[in-house]
This record gives sequence, C-alpha cells and structure tokens, in this order.
Amino acid sequence: MENIINSTSNRQIRALAQLQTKAKARRAEGLFVAEGVRMYREVPRELLVKTYVSESFYEKEQNRALLRDGGVEVVSDRVFAAVSDTKTPQGILCLVRQRQYSVEEMLQKETPFLLLLEDIQDPGNLGTIFRTAEAAGVSGILMSAGTADIYNPKTIRSTMGAVYRMPFGYVPDFLSVPEKLRQRRVRTYAAHLNAKSEYTAQDYRTGCAFLIGNEGNGLSDALAAQADVRVKISMEGQAESLNAAVAAAILMFEAKRQRSGA
Amino acid sequence: MENIINSTSNRQIRALAQLQTKAKARRAEGLFVAEGVRMYREVPRELLVKTYVSESFYEKEQNRALLRDGGVEVVSDRVFAAVSDTKTPQGILCLVRQRQYSVEEMLQKETPFLLLLEDIQDPGNLGTIFRTAEAAGVSGILMSAGTADIYNPKTIRSTMGAVYRMPFGYVPDFLSVPEKLRQRRVRTYAAHLNAKSEYTAQDYRTGCAFLIGNEGNGLSDALAAQADVRVKISMEGQAESLNAAVAAAILMFEAKRQRSGA
Repeated sequence: MENIINSTSNRQIRALAQLQTKAKARRAEGLFVAEGVRMYREVPRELLVKTYVSESFYEKEQNRALLRDGGVEVVSDRVFAAVSDTKTPQGILCLVRQRQYSVEEMLQKETPFLLLLEDIQDPGNLGTIFRTAEAAGVSGILMSAGTADIYNPKTIRSTMGAVYRMPFGYVPDFLSVPEKLRQRRVRTYAAHLNAKSEYTAQDYRTGCAFLIGNEGNGLSDALAAQADVRVKISMEGQAESLNAAVAAAILMFEAKRQRSGA
Repeated sequence: MENIINSTSNRQIRALAQLQTKAKARRAEGLFVAEGVRMYREVPRELLVKTYVSESFYEKEQNRALLRDGGVEVVSDRVFAAVSDTKTPQGILCLVRQRQYSVEEMLQKETPFLLLLEDIQDPGNLGTIFRTAEAAGVSGILMSAGTADIYNPKTIRSTMGAVYRMPFGYVPDFLSVPEKLRQRRVRTYAAHLNAKSEYTAQDYRTGCAFLIGNEGNGLSDALAAQADVRVKISMEGQAESLNAAVAAAILMFEAKRQRSGA
C-alpha cells in the first residue's frame, strides 16, 4: 500500500465526489459510481473503470480476495467516508461506464414486456422499480426526460444490481412512445385511478407495456390519452392511491403470473 | 395571535421534539406526532390531542379554515422548522393519541386477512406496507417486537393515513402467532425464497395470513417453521430477492384478486 490517497483535494477524489452528487457530471463523463460489495461484485467486467477501497477495507485479506484485476486505488478511511454516499460505508466503490441500449434490444423478444415511467421522482422508488422489473421478467424500461436520474447513488443501490442488466433509456419525445409501440404490436396499459377496467381483467400475454405516472400526480392526461387501455387497481378502505413502486409491482407480477400460465 | 410560541425551549416544544425523535418517549406518553395537512385532515377526532401550526401557515385564511375546534397553538416558523421532521415543513402537525387494538378486532370478519411482519427495519418500507395493506383489504397487522416503530415520523408519513385505520399490534411472543391463528382457522403463508410452492398456486379465499420477513435476512427459520405453507415469488433474471414492501404487496394483491373473484 504505497500510494494511499490521503487528501480529498486529490484530483480523482474530487472527480468521484462530482459524480456522486451531480447528474450533470455523470452525463458529461458517461460514468457513474457504484458503491458497496454487492454492486462491485455484480458490475460487468467491460463496464468497470476503476475501483476505490478504504484502507481498513483493504487491510482484510478476505476483502482483497474480492478485488478484480485492474485499477484499484486505496484511500484513507477519512477520504473514503467523504466520498461515500452512505452513512456507514462498506469501504468499496467503483467507477462504472454508462451503457446505451437501443429500443430494438428491448423489443427482441416475441412478446416484449416493457415499463414506461413518466416523471418518477423518488430515487428509492425508481431503483425499486428496476429491481422489481428484473424479477418480473421485464425486457426494458423507457423513461420520460423528467424522471429521476437512474445513476443517482441511492437509486443505484435500490436497484440491487438490476441497473447493470435491465435495458433502459430516457426518451425526450415520451408522448410518442405508445404509438411507436403500437406499430410494433405492443399494447400500452396506463395505470390510472379513474380507469374503468380492472387490471386483472386484461390479457398481458401478448406484447405489453405498463405506463406508470408520477408519485404525486399520477400520469399526465396527455400521456394517458395515448395508451391503448386504462387500467385501475381497485382499493379497499380509505386508501386513495398506492406507492408508485408498489403499483408497478402489482401490475408487473400480474403480467408475469399470466405469462407463466398460473 | 397573541400567544405565539417563540422559543424551542418552551415546555410543549421540547415535549414535541422528544416525541418526534424518541420511540421511548412515544411509548411512555402513549402519543405520537402526525405531520402535514393530509395527516391532520385524516386524524380521527377522538384521537386528536392538540394541533401546532407555524405562523406563516396560520396567516393564510384557507389554512385556518382547515383547523378543527380545540387546542391549536401557533408557533414561530423557526420553532416549527426545529420541531418538524421534514426538510420543507407544511406548517402543521398534531399530537395524536395512540390506539390499542385487540386481536379480536382483527379476527371479526368471517375470513380474516392478516399480515405478520417479522423485524421489518426500514421505516419507509413499514409505512408503505401499512398503506398497501389498507388498499388490499387487510384486516390487521401483527408485528414482532423487533419491527421498526410504526410511530416513527417517516413511517407515519409513508402510511398516508392508513396508520389511523389499520388495526395493528406488536406481539412479544411472535413465534406463537401462527399456532394461535391456526386455532382460529386462519392459515399462515410464509414468504420464503426456498419454498417449493408458487404463491399463485395457493387459495387465499379462506382466513389467511402472510408472514413477511426482515429486509436483509428474510424470515427466521424458527418462524418459517411455524407457518402452514411456505410460498415463493419466482423471479426472472439474476434478481435474488424483492424489496420487502414489494413482496408483501404482490402477495396481498394476489389474495385480493382471488377474494374478489377475478
């Protein structure tokens, strides 16, 4: 351990701090930071740029055994804590290259299963939606430009690694997505509180896409109007709405249930 | 507005701050703090002890129209910000009496539908589970002693008012719950990654209870062994688990789907 980075004004550390806190910096560099053992272990080799570990992490032999070949920098615990996004850092984070996906990748399957997110704001919700989508067998996630940044550190953590594997993209002209999908024989279902049809009454075994709206306001009228079908999740009691990640999960797993023939 | 509270060392304000931050204080007093317009509007009259509003909240006529009869204290914006749990306070919070529910209340229905939570730790997850449970028609939630405090301010907010309406209780001898429910003809289904039976293959139209485990570790073996049936939610891709609130939502809404005859 000859070259331990001891200073938060080190050039690499300053760059890391920018990437942790600023979506703009992440976009400009085409990079993001993934933190923790799990996120490090699951990062695809070709996307891993560099690894940073804290001194006390590096001191343990079983930790060093986790490290892959290639650039590893050891930084003092104080510097690590300064650049970490968590209160109790695990002592490992890595710099990862952003991947671009094409819509074609998402439509490869015979019966694609997409998720369309309009202006989801909460980083934890967004990450949880990615995590759930992978488990439900979703083939891709398209997001409006107003959706939170998937590369936000909290979002990354909430995906539990799905961010590495789930094809996704931000679409500037989001209103046009349902029509484009229709041309590819993918039906769009808008989750809407005022829908007439119950979500369980639809057949999701063909190509399908669920439209999920913003946490506070739901889907915009303009986008809901583009969907093929509006569906509601009926609620008991005085509940007025569901958490966005919960609503998305219920819809995705109903589709999965139907698609698995259960 | 003669008697505006201007000091954070005011006795009432100090007591409020204790209730916001300390589960022990909430338990000792049998009180909790509910913050925001929505939580104020939905608090049952008989549980409302006192209301606190910020000066700038009180200045607006439409805000004053929201206030109910009874004790309302106006506090300076600075004091309100100090006692608020949120970064951008709405300017209204209230002191609410805790309610005790009996298990009998939860078992009144012919086919009770319960949720059993073991050691759920994340306040947001716990609140979201309450919110989702109300929407799914759950009749009561029983929690292990190691579960997070439902009266944590973040949890309260995440319930979106369900905390006022959902019967719940903490059960010290949690391991004995499945057997007690069995005697009441309520079957317990443990959500478990290693279960053989798919959750969609079970019939939830009779009395049923879902056992949901801790975020990191899942259900304890001891508790899982007490369940009548273990069920899994099969996952695609490399997903290893689901967020606890998401898993609970998928199970509850599958039960709701079956119970509604869809």
